[in-house]
Amino acid sequence: MEELRRRILQDGRAINEQVLLVDSFLNHQVDVKLMQEIGACFAARFADAGVTRVVTVESSGIAPAAMTALDMGLPMVILKKSASMILSDDTVQTEVFSFTKNAPYQLTLKRRFVHPGDRVLLIDDFLANGAAAFGAIRLIERCGAEVAGIGTVICKAFQPGLARLREAGYRVEPLAEITRMDEGVIEFADDNGV
Amino acid sequence: MEELRRRILQDGRAINEQVLLVDSFLNHQVDVKLMQEIGACFAARFADAGVTRVVTVESSGIAPAAMTALDMGLPMVILKKSASMILSDDTVQTEVFSFTKNAPYQLTLKRRFVHPGDRVLLIDDFLANGAAAFGAIRLIERCGAEVAGIGTVICKAFQPGLARLREAGYRVEPLAEITRMDEGVIEFADDNGV
Repeated sequence: MEELRRRILQDGRAINEQVLLVDSFLNHQVDVKLMQEIGACFAARFADAGVTRVVTVESSGIAPAAMTALDMGLPMVILKKSASMILSDDTVQTEVFSFTKNAPYQLTLKRRFVHPGDRVLLIDDFLANGAAAFGAIRLIERCGAEVAGIGTVICKAFQPGLARLREAGYRVEPLAEITRMDEGVIEFADDNGV
Repeated sequence: MEELRRRILQDGRAINEQVLLVDSFLNHQVDVKLMQEIGACFAARFADAGVTRVVTVESSGIAPAAMTALDMGLPMVILKKSASMILSDDTVQTEVFSFTKNAPYQLTLKRRFVHPGDRVLLIDDFLANGAAAFGAIRLIERCGAEVAGIGTVICKAFQPGLARLREAGYRVEPLAEITRMDEGVIEFADDNGV
């Protein structure tokens, strides 16, 4: 997505080989018009995927996921990053390791919000190691639903998440795929998408 | 807002006198079309307030705040519920007590996303004790900006937040104002708004 790559180059800042700061338009201050364009882009890319529900992980995925769900006319479900007080048959939960915070957290979902037969589009702001994505997939599949696709706004393709998800057979569509970063340097893969 | 009150009565569940479960359309599964209508409603109510920026608190406020910001053509800023690793002159932080989790947390904002002279519309999903709202106000005012208004999707008016904010001189617009709740009972204040 050309406009997103332009914004990353203009307003993003690669701190080092791993950390990209995009908090001026994606996850602290949010350019909601850009999020709307991102939502339209995901909706177009997954128009053929028979999606019935958009799922995201709180909290930076919520804005792009909400715009995607709005464009597709579907409900959004937010996976919660806190342990459920009452664990019951009604709730599925899985541990995810956060590399950003260097600590594990519990990802939680009430079964009644993702159903057997659902085809889920998973949307998140970043894909790096894939830990959050695989955690979300575990919860979605435990509810008997299928992951129809994964849309990630920014993918750090030099980290293992993208390759691992594709090896596991999932369809992943990054809107901006970064192949290399360093202080002051951001390089993208060729983009043939919408 | 008639449609919101209808949904609260239809899909919400008062667990007791304090807790209202609306996780089927507001904060776990999210009806994004309803969020869009909520955004339009806030935009109409605060059309005369000279708003320059929409601010919310992660994470359940993000969807309605994003739709409000989109409708108003303004950027959204998400106050973060985690302590900043690097506290500097660039960041303001304040402690907020969460009655839901019975524990304090740090609310954080980078100064460069709220400026002196900004007129901020603060949007959140719930107003109860007002602790989160007063925390957000402290951060916004510490950045030299003014709180032009507070839009809350659901207000538990029998808890002290609404009265305290109005006593302090803030303009608060709840879209659904609940005056009394109990198991199976939800009562609203008269609604003369949009």
